[in-house]
Amino acid sequence: MHAYRSHTCADLTKANVGQTVRLAGWVHRVRDHGGVLFVDLRDHYGVTQVLCDSDSPVFAEVDQLRSEWCIRIDGEVKARDESLINPKLPTGEIEVYIRDMEVLGAAQELPLMVFGDQEYPEETRLRYRYLDLRREVMQRNMTLRSDVVASMRRRMWDKGFREYQTPIITASSPEGARDFLVPSRLHPGKFYALPQAPQQFKQLIMVSGFDKYFQIAPCFRDEDPRADRSPTDFYQLDMEMSFVTQQDVFDTIQPVLEGVFEEFADGAKVDKHWPQISYKDAALWYGTDKPDLRNPIRMQVVSEHFRGSGFAIFAKLLEQEGTEIRAIPAPGGGSRKFCDRMNAFAQKEGLPGMGYIFWRDGADGLEAAGPLAKNIGPERTEAIRQQLGLGKGDAAFFLGGKPKTFEAVAGRARTVIGEELSLTETNRFAFAWIVDFPIYQRDEETGQLDFDHNPFSMPQGGMAALEGDPLDVVGYQYDLACNGYELVSGAIRNHKLDTMYKAFEIAGYPAEEVDRRFGGMVNAFKFGAPPHGGCAAGIDRIVMLLASESNIREVMMFPMNQRAEDLMMNAPSEPSSDQLMELGLRVIPQDD
Amino acid sequence: MHAYRSHTCADLTKANVGQTVRLAGWVHRVRDHGGVLFVDLRDHYGVTQVLCDSDSPVFAEVDQLRSEWCIRIDGEVKARDESLINPKLPTGEIEVYIRDMEVLGAAQELPLMVFGDQEYPEETRLRYRYLDLRREVMQRNMTLRSDVVASMRRRMWDKGFREYQTPIITASSPEGARDFLVPSRLHPGKFYALPQAPQQFKQLIMVSGFDKYFQIAPCFRDEDPRADRSPTDFYQLDMEMSFVTQQDVFDTIQPVLEGVFEEFADGAKVDKHWPQISYKDAALWYGTDKPDLRNPIRMQVVSEHFRGSGFAIFAKLLEQEGTEIRAIPAPGGGSRKFCDRMNAFAQKEGLPGMGYIFWRDGADGLEAAGPLAKNIGPERTEAIRQQLGLGKGDAAFFLGGKPKTFEAVAGRARTVIGEELSLTETNRFAFAWIVDFPIYQRDEETGQLDFDHNPFSMPQGGMAALEGDPLDVVGYQYDLACNGYELVSGAIRNHKLDTMYKAFEIAGYPAEEVDRRFGGMVNAFKFGAPPHGGCAAGIDRIVMLLASESNIREVMMFPMNQRAEDLMMNAPSEPSSDQLMELGLRVIPQDD
Repeated sequence: MHAYRSHTCADLTKANVGQTVRLAGWVHRVRDHGGVLFVDLRDHYGVTQVLCDSDSPVFAEVDQLRSEWCIRIDGEVKARDESLINPKLPTGEIEVYIRDMEVLGAAQELPLMVFGDQEYPEETRLRYRYLDLRREVMQRNMTLRSDVVASMRRRMWDKGFREYQTPIITASSPEGARDFLVPSRLHPGKFYALPQAPQQFKQLIMVSGFDKYFQIAPCFRDEDPRADRSPTDFYQLDMEMSFVTQQDVFDTIQPVLEGVFEEFADGAKVDKHWPQISYKDAALWYGTDKPDLRNPIRMQVVSEHFRGSGFAIFAKLLEQEGTEIRAIPAPGGGSRKFCDRMNAFAQKEGLPGMGYIFWRDGADGLEAAGPLAKNIGPERTEAIRQQLGLGKGDAAFFLGGKPKTFEAVAGRARTVIGEELSLTETNRFAFAWIVDFPIYQRDEETGQLDFDHNPFSMPQGGMAALEGDPLDVVGYQYDLACNGYELVSGAIRNHKLDTMYKAFEIAGYPAEEVDRRFGGMVNAFKFGAPPHGGCAAGIDRIVMLLASESNIREVMMFPMNQRAEDLMMNAPSEPSSDQLMELGLRVIPQDD
Repeated sequence: MHAYRSHTCADLTKANVGQTVRLAGWVHRVRDHGGVLFVDLRDHYGVTQVLCDSDSPVFAEVDQLRSEWCIRIDGEVKARDESLINPKLPTGEIEVYIRDMEVLGAAQELPLMVFGDQEYPEETRLRYRYLDLRREVMQRNMTLRSDVVASMRRRMWDKGFREYQTPIITASSPEGARDFLVPSRLHPGKFYALPQAPQQFKQLIMVSGFDKYFQIAPCFRDEDPRADRSPTDFYQLDMEMSFVTQQDVFDTIQPVLEGVFEEFADGAKVDKHWPQISYKDAALWYGTDKPDLRNPIRMQVVSEHFRGSGFAIFAKLLEQEGTEIRAIPAPGGGSRKFCDRMNAFAQKEGLPGMGYIFWRDGADGLEAAGPLAKNIGPERTEAIRQQLGLGKGDAAFFLGGKPKTFEAVAGRARTVIGEELSLTETNRFAFAWIVDFPIYQRDEETGQLDFDHNPFSMPQGGMAALEGDPLDVVGYQYDLACNGYELVSGAIRNHKLDTMYKAFEIAGYPAEEVDRRFGGMVNAFKFGAPPHGGCAAGIDRIVMLLASESNIREVMMFPMNQRAEDLMMNAPSEPSSDQLMELGLRVIPQDD
């Protein structure tokens, strides 16, 4: 017989009754039922009930077992009494009578129980991650992650993509976040950087003629702590293609991601129609460029109904240039209580409040209620109701001003309204491509133009477009939103050097600066660059969504804590003076 | 029609004749055949001959084209004349008459030609890697690498392994090479390290109960330059399993690697029998622990034939303790010229020389020639011949002393003999598991014991073995040799804390030192560690072998040069003073 096991802890069924088997695993639970010891023996695959009566030659040893000891047992498979069969367990028909036992690895007193679902502080969980990971939910999350990534790979291969590995110790990449640096020993005083993303390299792979690239790529950003991101690294499904348009990229990646979601959605609905929504429309309709389309609410512009109306605040506001009044329709929200709660929400978010109207049964049929309705009068109120398609029992909220000042709050109000009124479907994944991102934005304080997104995107209309108003230029740049998260970001790249220099010049970067910062790519574009584009999908976030987790650390094997420390492995730690010497570095003493 | 192409440059056949098609790619070559311009248009998939006669509306534009311009053409597919069909090209039956053309990306004068097989200095190739990579052999090597890695993944999945990603920004790992350090910004003065291998993490994954792990894992070692390794990083197929013996690991990984070699060997023979050879036997038989088994020569101990013989040098040598005489049989090497050449080889390698005997036709039949035969006389000479199984036209070489002093040279001599006499088969992959590595070695100078290999291997015989002579202890530690390279290294791990502390104590590491250096793993072993083991296969080396390359940079997309610089991307480079400030570091001025 094998030294450790003849079967896993998920294998044995009635068919094995009468066999002598060998199992290995962890003691999940021990119970003493009047001189008979019941042990739930657990491995990666499942749990088998093994038991030991006082006749067993190893009763005394089994009696010593405690939770999480790793053991090997030999025993006889017996059928359970009909009444004791556990239909929820694959091995629920049998139990194994222990005849021999060996302790493979004993365990000290546990700082964290594997059995049960007691909550522990994150620091405890991370310090004893090897125990935390033995818990059922973590075993499930990690295998899910592994299976999702494997599925992505299979699907990319099936589409003719090959995975090429790009350097991890390299030069700074221009993603705009902070680099992790790696001091060079052979060149003291010089540093490598870990890539924030393989963007330049994947573009170089296209210039090298490889046509279709993908990579499950580790990306490194020295970011300040936040709940939903790792302070050090994350993984992307990174892809790039040559000789393609934006639609080609969509047509390539949608079946991949849709397939992955279908495969792992565990019964949730996966939308097949992924609408393309312009950045501008998304901002108007949803107040965000990562809308949650499970929420059916769409905001609308209702300025005309307020212009010159009796509601002086809005009427005055509209006299200023660039202002608008927008409405958030709230079907089913037609009660004063709800409307007041939403008004309070807006105040908590820093706005003066949200005006509202709601419709209820009145003496003469439908009646519009709320102070705003009174101010603007029945005709305007009715026109608004008709525009928004609302009726009895519904409400609408109103926000006004320059859109930038209230858009984000409006978006969050839409989310809360959708959730509170149960309008937002659960158990569904809804996707939307957000397209036509502006290339530039103007810094409100300095008045300077800068890139709004990735500086390497091709402006729609090319060079000609760059000669008009920069703020009107939109790029072949896109995001994929899913349930309120940004899952994918990408672009058709600007592969034409003259257009690239011009684009950077507008943002205030002279050619020398472009050459200095992006020399590798700039030089490559001088030697027959193909048109190309692609995208990158955030793997941690996709797994988080599929696992119904809201903390990225629940889907990473060995994450750092929020102070970017690994307490289990003791990282970061102080280097030896020899190491510093070799690197030609000195640590500046810090004031505490 | 699609913006860039209706077909790739490998698609068109006679079946497309008469169609109007759109192709995109690079100008591989242009030839002017008396007013007709022939362009070999190349993309990742193949080459199509497109041509332009003076009737074409874009003749003038096509006439401007130079090598490596990226273009799009529209044209009509026509059948080639029977006499012009190129059967070597998938598109060799047709040509495309250009009707429209667009330059997608022009190219400056090329520092490196893609067409043809001119050699360039490595610095040029790396600086303009995107041009170098367009060359046929590099396209082939990179796709081979990608396909090999994909095949490994598929095979591991099929065996029930899941890929789990381990941290890249982490603590120092105990592989014994030099770490790359990463300064922490949030903890100034402290550093992370890039993992030399995921060894501790994969062991922790086993302690976490995952049973079967693999990863295509980047490994980082700050190594001094050498031709056959990257100065920064390399990739391993890293795997680990719980509840296994050494034979289980072999039975798991052999089909994976054998399958990969079968799949990509391109006609070369792949051995199905992988013998297990002890480290001791390998040293004796082959003079190395990475023997090339395509070479049939096995060395033998022939001390007895020389003890007290007339060959005084060897006879005297044998009076010292620990000495041996070993023979390298050389079937077919029976000429004075060859024997003298090999003797000279040994002298070049720093030995006094190699004695030899060779057998030829003499007056009375078989005659043993060479000074050594004369010294020891016919009887001993004949006994040697019989032991070695040699005959007419064969030779044998002899080396003596303490084995450690000549083993390596003997091994190299065996290699040269095998090659020069054409004994070493080409076009074959021959594998051997080298097993039973000693756990300890004694430093000749200091007399101190230290670990010979990985300190985390389980000693055969466990704790009891450690209580005997340490130099007699062998581990469950193994390598896989293939054609003279080490492809795989692995071990059954020491998962028992008491045995681990004892093993380290013997090597001079007190328990506190073990706790300090390997605390993560040591702590984990206190909570029910399962027996486990695994191995790691060097991917770059496997691809190198399959691609018949001898330089690792030929199978890496963007390698560093031998000074660990990326000239294309300008890494490493000087950090900004802001960056240094944030990290709390100061660069010590270097003397040049």
